[in-house]
Amino acid sequence: MIPDNLRKALREFKEGAIGEEQILDLLRDLPYQNLDFAKVDHHRALRHGFPEVIFGKGKTADQIEGIGVALLAKHPNLLVTRATEEAHERLKNRFPECRYYPNCGALTVVREFKNHGRGKIGIFSAGTADIPVAEEAQVTAEAMGNETHCCYDVGVAGLHRILSQLDTLRSCTVVIVAAGMEGALPSVVGGLVDLPVIAVPTSIGYGASFNGIAALLGMLNSCSANVSVVNIDNGFGAGYIASLINRKQD
Amino acid sequence: MIPDNLRKALREFKEGAIGEEQILDLLRDLPYQNLDFAKVDHHRALRHGFPEVIFGKGKTADQIEGIGVALLAKHPNLLVTRATEEAHERLKNRFPECRYYPNCGALTVVREFKNHGRGKIGIFSAGTADIPVAEEAQVTAEAMGNETHCCYDVGVAGLHRILSQLDTLRSCTVVIVAAGMEGALPSVVGGLVDLPVIAVPTSIGYGASFNGIAALLGMLNSCSANVSVVNIDNGFGAGYIASLINRKQD
Amino acid sequence: MIPDNLRKALREFKEGAIGEEQILDLLRDLPYQNLDFAKVDHHRALRHGFPEVIFGKGKTADQIEGIGVALLAKHPNLLVTRATEEAHERLKNRFPECRYYPNCGALTVVREFKNHGRGKIGIFSAGTADIPVAEEAQVTAEAMGNETHCCYDVGVAGLHRILSQLDTLRSCTVVIVAAGMEGALPSVVGGLVDLPVIAVPTSIGYGASFNGIAALLGMLNSCSANVSVVNIDNGFGAGYIASLINRKQD
Amino acid sequence: MIPDNLRKALREFKEGAIGEEQILDLLRDLPYQNLDFAKVDHHRALRHGFPEVIFGKGKTADQIEGIGVALLAKHPNLLVTRATEEAHERLKNRFPECRYYPNCGALTVVREFKNHGRGKIGIFSAGTADIPVAEEAQVTAEAMGNETHCCYDVGVAGLHRILSQLDTLRSCTVVIVAAGMEGALPSVVGGLVDLPVIAVPTSIGYGASFNGIAALLGMLNSCSANVSVVNIDNGFGAGYIASLINRKQD
Amino acid sequence: MIPDNLRKALREFKEGAIGEEQILDLLRDLPYQNLDFAKVDHHRALRHGFPEVIFGKGKTADQIEGIGVALLAKHPNLLVTRATEEAHERLKNRFPECRYYPNCGALTVVREFKNHGRGKIGIFSAGTADIPVAEEAQVTAEAMGNETHCCYDVGVAGLHRILSQLDTLRSCTVVIVAAGMEGALPSVVGGLVDLPVIAVPTSIGYGASFNGIAALLGMLNSCSANVSVVNIDNGFGAGYIASLINRKQD
Amino acid sequence: MIPDNLRKALREFKEGAIGEEQILDLLRDLPYQNLDFAKVDHHRALRHGFPEVIFGKGKTADQIEGIGVALLAKHPNLLVTRATEEAHERLKNRFPECRYYPNCGALTVVREFKNHGRGKIGIFSAGTADIPVAEEAQVTAEAMGNETHCCYDVGVAGLHRILSQLDTLRSCTVVIVAAGMEGALPSVVGGLVDLPVIAVPTSIGYGASFNGIAALLGMLNSCSANVSVVNIDNGFGAGYIASLINRKQD
Amino acid sequence: MIPDNLRKALREFKEGAIGEEQILDLLRDLPYQNLDFAKVDHHRALRHGFPEVIFGKGKTADQIEGIGVALLAKHPNLLVTRATEEAHERLKNRFPECRYYPNCGALTVVREFKNHGRGKIGIFSAGTADIPVAEEAQVTAEAMGNETHCCYDVGVAGLHRILSQLDTLRSCTVVIVAAGMEGALPSVVGGLVDLPVIAVPTSIGYGASFNGIAALLGMLNSCSANVSVVNIDNGFGAGYIASLINRKQD
Amino acid sequence: MIPDNLRKALREFKEGAIGEEQILDLLRDLPYQNLDFAKVDHHRALRHGFPEVIFGKGKTADQIEGIGVALLAKHPNLLVTRATEEAHERLKNRFPECRYYPNCGALTVVREFKNHGRGKIGIFSAGTADIPVAEEAQVTAEAMGNETHCCYDVGVAGLHRILSQLDTLRSCTVVIVAAGMEGALPSVVGGLVDLPVIAVPTSIGYGASFNGIAALLGMLNSCSANVSVVNIDNGFGAGYIASLINRKQD
Repeated sequence: MIPDNLRKALREFKEGAIGEEQILDLLRDLPYQNLDFAKVDHHRALRHGFPEVIFGKGKTADQIEGIGVALLAKHPNLLVTRATEEAHERLKNRFPECRYYPNCGALTVVREFKNHGRGKIGIFSAGTADIPVAEEAQVTAEAMGNETHCCYDVGVAGLHRILSQLDTLRSCTVVIVAAGMEGALPSVVGGLVDLPVIAVPTSIGYGASFNGIAALLGMLNSCSANVSVVNIDNGFGAGYIASLINRKQD
Repeated sequence: MIPDNLRKALREFKEGAIGEEQILDLLRDLPYQNLDFAKVDHHRALRHGFPEVIFGKGKTADQIEGIGVALLAKHPNLLVTRATEEAHERLKNRFPECRYYPNCGALTVVREFKNHGRGKIGIFSAGTADIPVAEEAQVTAEAMGNETHCCYDVGVAGLHRILSQLDTLRSCTVVIVAAGMEGALPSVVGGLVDLPVIAVPTSIGYGASFNGIAALLGMLNSCSANVSVVNIDNGFGAGYIASLINRKQD
Repeated sequence: MIPDNLRKALREFKEGAIGEEQILDLLRDLPYQNLDFAKVDHHRALRHGFPEVIFGKGKTADQIEGIGVALLAKHPNLLVTRATEEAHERLKNRFPECRYYPNCGALTVVREFKNHGRGKIGIFSAGTADIPVAEEAQVTAEAMGNETHCCYDVGVAGLHRILSQLDTLRSCTVVIVAAGMEGALPSVVGGLVDLPVIAVPTSIGYGASFNGIAALLGMLNSCSANVSVVNIDNGFGAGYIASLINRKQD
Repeated sequence: MIPDNLRKALREFKEGAIGEEQILDLLRDLPYQNLDFAKVDHHRALRHGFPEVIFGKGKTADQIEGIGVALLAKHPNLLVTRATEEAHERLKNRFPECRYYPNCGALTVVREFKNHGRGKIGIFSAGTADIPVAEEAQVTAEAMGNETHCCYDVGVAGLHRILSQLDTLRSCTVVIVAAGMEGALPSVVGGLVDLPVIAVPTSIGYGASFNGIAALLGMLNSCSANVSVVNIDNGFGAGYIASLINRKQD
Repeated sequence: MIPDNLRKALREFKEGAIGEEQILDLLRDLPYQNLDFAKVDHHRALRHGFPEVIFGKGKTADQIEGIGVALLAKHPNLLVTRATEEAHERLKNRFPECRYYPNCGALTVVREFKNHGRGKIGIFSAGTADIPVAEEAQVTAEAMGNETHCCYDVGVAGLHRILSQLDTLRSCTVVIVAAGMEGALPSVVGGLVDLPVIAVPTSIGYGASFNGIAALLGMLNSCSANVSVVNIDNGFGAGYIASLINRKQD
Repeated sequence: MIPDNLRKALREFKEGAIGEEQILDLLRDLPYQNLDFAKVDHHRALRHGFPEVIFGKGKTADQIEGIGVALLAKHPNLLVTRATEEAHERLKNRFPECRYYPNCGALTVVREFKNHGRGKIGIFSAGTADIPVAEEAQVTAEAMGNETHCCYDVGVAGLHRILSQLDTLRSCTVVIVAAGMEGALPSVVGGLVDLPVIAVPTSIGYGASFNGIAALLGMLNSCSANVSVVNIDNGFGAGYIASLINRKQD
Repeated sequence: MIPDNLRKALREFKEGAIGEEQILDLLRDLPYQNLDFAKVDHHRALRHGFPEVIFGKGKTADQIEGIGVALLAKHPNLLVTRATEEAHERLKNRFPECRYYPNCGALTVVREFKNHGRGKIGIFSAGTADIPVAEEAQVTAEAMGNETHCCYDVGVAGLHRILSQLDTLRSCTVVIVAAGMEGALPSVVGGLVDLPVIAVPTSIGYGASFNGIAALLGMLNSCSANVSVVNIDNGFGAGYIASLINRKQD
Repeated sequence: MIPDNLRKALREFKEGAIGEEQILDLLRDLPYQNLDFAKVDHHRALRHGFPEVIFGKGKTADQIEGIGVALLAKHPNLLVTRATEEAHERLKNRFPECRYYPNCGALTVVREFKNHGRGKIGIFSAGTADIPVAEEAQVTAEAMGNETHCCYDVGVAGLHRILSQLDTLRSCTVVIVAAGMEGALPSVVGGLVDLPVIAVPTSIGYGASFNGIAALLGMLNSCSANVSVVNIDNGFGAGYIASLINRKQD
């Protein structure tokens, strides 16, 4: 989408209607004024096949429906995070492919699925209470065209649970680990496999867990060198990054 | 050590030199004024066989020598924590049994050893940098008449290291675990054995470890129910508590 | 529960159906894949006589009933922490031994009581508002087969209250102390007895108590060497650890 | 010290040299411009007999000598807090009454002592390491004309120590309590006497004492209603406030 | 209230029914076991004329009524802090002198007023939103037999407001200052008068006030040496301490 | 408004009814006692044309109506921040010029508009969720007689959005930037223009945003030297300061 | 400085050597690739007359000399913040106009002074220890072409000191206030004048000042609406922003 | 490396020397006791071609030399982080390929280089002071067989600097961004490319940067969904994770 006024000015310059200094003056501010045309193009190339994403929190069902319909007019797929049941009702009426995940509030419309992944994304949670966060990661990863392997409630107090998953862990390209309380699972997983591990601290816990701070600090100080961390309860971010890591290169 | 003035007053009361109200007046304040005689007696019974302890930090070699000599005149054994090499020189000259542990600064004079333990105290550290803290626990536990089993550098990033210690872990009465950084080892150990686990966060780490806060929070939020926690770098406290837990009942 | 495929493979190896390298290949991954059989066995031995525990918070009455019934099919006793009155109704209908403690939300089914303790567990609280946390410790300790001595509202602002409990304190094997606000009671108790003291900070207080942080820090910095600490409001953990400490050795 | 220009203007006004509006204009800004004359007068009345105070930290021996000499030219007594040994040398050469307290760095020149107190100020510390802070309070209180009763190393882990001081405690008008680590002593003292208790948290401790934060929070959350708190290590402030409380009304 | 068993034992000892060692054994534990009799007596002397206090928060109207009736059977006056309107209704029906302060929830029954103060207690608040906390201090001080001078909404952004109170400030014995947000008023007041200033941080504010932490820190770091601090929103404590400071000595 | 008693005293002094020392005594306390007359006058000059402001939070519709009516009797314009819809109803009935901004709760009565600005105030927000805070700044700035340019949802994750605003940015006198989460927009804007940038952290975000702390810290550490910061969510303050900066000098 | 390749491409386009799509492709990435030419030009216009600035901390005398010489080859004036005495020696040898301010480490070379200010910048500090930070602001403001009025040690504990500056305060265009400890001075100043007040918290204080956090929080919560805040000890930023506010519009 | 005792037992079982239950008993504990043999094998496969790593901090030159020589006997390449110049001297004498990076203290011995990367790793820093951290990432990535593109001092206050790198950014597989102060660069970079961005907060800054906390929080709250975070100053971790992401699949 080259802006019309730029084309027009170039033609006027070519025809001599405006001089070299005039066209240079115009171009001087181009970087800022018309950045959109360059940006959009670039994004199209990079994001091909990824769904559009709406952050649903704080948006009304009306707003989500409106934005969703607009996006789905141009793109095959849509992901809404932290949406309400009501937003689901609205979109389901218009798009039968609409699917809702009540645990985490994610909502997808996937009309055209293509596997963009080099391999599988592993998603693990320490406790059952961490599942909504892990599920947000899962829905995100799947909506972005990945195969996932999910396994929940495998915290370090019963080590045999995660150890029994070793084969699966080894077969992934990247691993997401959600944990609250002391947040120790990513370190243990990070020691078992030589893959990028994305740690998601959750706000699960009480007292000195300080709504996820204990888990966050634990993960940032992981003695396993392959662990990086996202914000507390940010399952979406973990799923998004894992998808970028797992992305097949064209 | 009943105070003399109390004996004297009782005799005077018995002999009629002072009346009932007078002796009652005197007794009214006894709880506060002469508490020592009750307290000391009580302690003697309970602490039988334990060494006297000096907290060496901030004390000069002179002071440690002075207090140490005084204590050793009445008690067979002595433990000094966080002592300097110089304090060691002084006491060694007087007491050939004196032994110094330069890693943690502990110093012991054990002239009469008796095993007071019901079993063995296990002491584990996550990294090599945590060893001084673990060693302070060990020296304390041994000076208090316990057998210890120590095993260092068994952190969760290489799980096989702690797993290979399972038999030893199972054979203890109580376990001490020192760890810095994310402090995950106590949770893992706590899940492997049904024993009291005393977690010691260490100040080892950098950045968001905040000098041991990350490890401390991790341990307080342990998903293993058998973990209790002492202050950052408090190896002495861990060794002391483990000794009380392991204590044989007479 | 040795897995059948392992027995089968050993027999095939003995009979020559598979060679040494083949059986070694199979065993190579055994550590991770079939860990359960070793773990469960080990637990059975250690936990003999202890109740199964459900962390009730965040679970529906339906879920608690379901898990509870399943556990009670195999085990005589059950402990549920932070359960609702509704969960109580459900379990009471099925198990007449079911007992509910509304202050702390604990719920027990004890059909077979055996005293597993070497002695008595003392449980003290600084204020009346700390009682629910202390009670959670008490119910846990009793459900795990211990005799308890409880004494509430004995905070340090009226020292005579805890001092009048000295005889009782001295008669215990281990002491639990729950306190909010400045959390000073464990230090005072720790100075009065040479027993392991498990301090439970509570979230009671206002302003600069920061929901239990002040009490937590106070306890971690106790000048009494025999104090270890659990998470804020974690009465269950304190009761659990005290039970392990008090446990009779078979 | 009524400013001369004010007197002059009033006389001009009386003599008709300036009009009512002019003198009112001048007075309009008087509140701000010439506040000194009111302020100084007020202070003279209130502070009668108190020494002048220099906060020595960060000042050179030269500066302290200079200010000290200037103040002592007009006032009989001087108090310098956190002064160096060198500053002491300088002032001692000029003022033989100069006395230095190396533990806390306080320095006094008291040439005219008058007891301004209604009673005695009690000063207590939990540990020996807290003594420098307590001593700063003591020197301040004494330099301000008070009799003090000091008693150090009476922390709550050995309750008999503070209890044996009950008579003394009861005989004071106000009590200062300095404590580091968990800072529990002010609560205990506050429960023993119905006097104002000024709590001074000290930076003594390690790990989770966070340089006095644990003690500070403990004191702010004291369950004894008669405890107020000053900044960490602020012995001077405690001594100053206690002196104001103890002050005889003329 | 000398305990009967002590009298009895003394008589038996005098009569020779029990020997010297036996009576000494009994006295050995007296400090702890029967502390009440000494304590209560002491309190009676010190607290003479002060009301009994109930901390109403978290207590039901039933409980407050029950405790209140019991206390008022023995004491003329009562103070309840943080009580509900319902508790007020209950006590009013029984005691016509009952008075309720809905802003702060304080409730008093004063049947016998005697002025215990040496002078007047000044109570100031920075904003109108701080009034409930200031009022709690006022009601406490008045119920404890003091005359108060209250002046609200005199924060430092309009300095003339507090400056116009100078005469009043100077006429007090002790000053209470309640302030939220940046908590600067106590420093300003502390600079204007040489009296003890008790600063009460309030939780008023938003954002980086962190529910009173900003005000608390400001007050602890006051550049005026005569400021001491109580917990956030602790109007009762401020009123209590001010009453102790203002107390007439008999 | 020179106070009558001052005029009276001056006249008495002139007439000789009172002497020089008497009038000086009276003036001595004038700074504090009658400061109002100087203050108000000063304010009138400086604030000319600015609306009166009521902080609506925590005030009832009744109170806002009452204060508002009183202020509007003397001043043409009024600004109420954080007012309720109900307060709006009340004032609208009396003042048809009343306008309400439901996003941020601001309410204005502007009956006399005069442009006091030297230029335009730019107001930008990073996300749509930050708009209420930005809008509070806008309403404040406009009610204080400024022209504003507002542009919302131009956060740094899509840089082209803010870059396309460069011309507008450059045309302002001062810029307000509201942002939550990582709060990076003020740094970017600060690098694009050499104008004063007032950064407003918002409480928008979740997890480690800690209700605006992350944004606040980010802004305080801005690598652009032209950024100063106000409290979290303090749109009013930002609008007020920007108005002072933009103010035309008479 | 239009990049040569752009001029060349435009000429080729005009001459038909490259087509419209080709030149558009080239321009598409221009926003990012050649931004410098637009940026520099823009800055030249805005910053006219301002000195170049080097942040000296962490740079060697060699580096500062090198960068300084390069900048002074093109610009008349230079400001270096946090420079060492050694860097001063170096630059002084080359530029006789070089001036060093040892308190704050600022260093200026001003060879061409022009007053860019609309008025005067007021700079105030609460204590003498805050002077280095205030001085950094002063040197910055003066090097940027402003007249300043500085007044130090006017903290709120002696209110008459700042009040006596009222006339000066009122005569400024913008005011900078540096304060440590409780940081109350900006609020008081903000209440006295209706000017933009830039508050600089300093790290001066001890204990609960937490190296400037107490002052920072105090200032962010100022009850005066005209106060904005910069980072702790950031005198340079305050001077820079004040210069932008005071800047004469051409 | 199958342990000998396992082979021996299997043979004894085959030969009937031990029975089925006996061999099962032995295998029961195998998971824990002999985990090494499985673990090592697994690591060999995964880590093929990666250097061995020594964390140099706190290790003496002697220790680093010793471990380094041992590792280099079995592996071609070595990476030591945070090593001293002295350790470099030692290893250089033995291994001529040894190379030292004094900025960050990294040290490599690369004797066999193979490119393991799918593409290029981009490494960017916001300021020059962040370079040591960025360089640690670079050395790590290169030692692990990657091609890097590094570009430093491209912070957001001068946006044109990072924008001019757009082509390079787009050509990478994964991007590392190191930034201190407000840590805004990762968000801006994350918005420009759809690649995994690994953010490294650095401890660069002063005042409210709190040694990297401000940058850390900024990055965790990034509005760009593709940003994950490692510990403060953890350049090694960032380089390690980027290498895993960039790793060619065999």
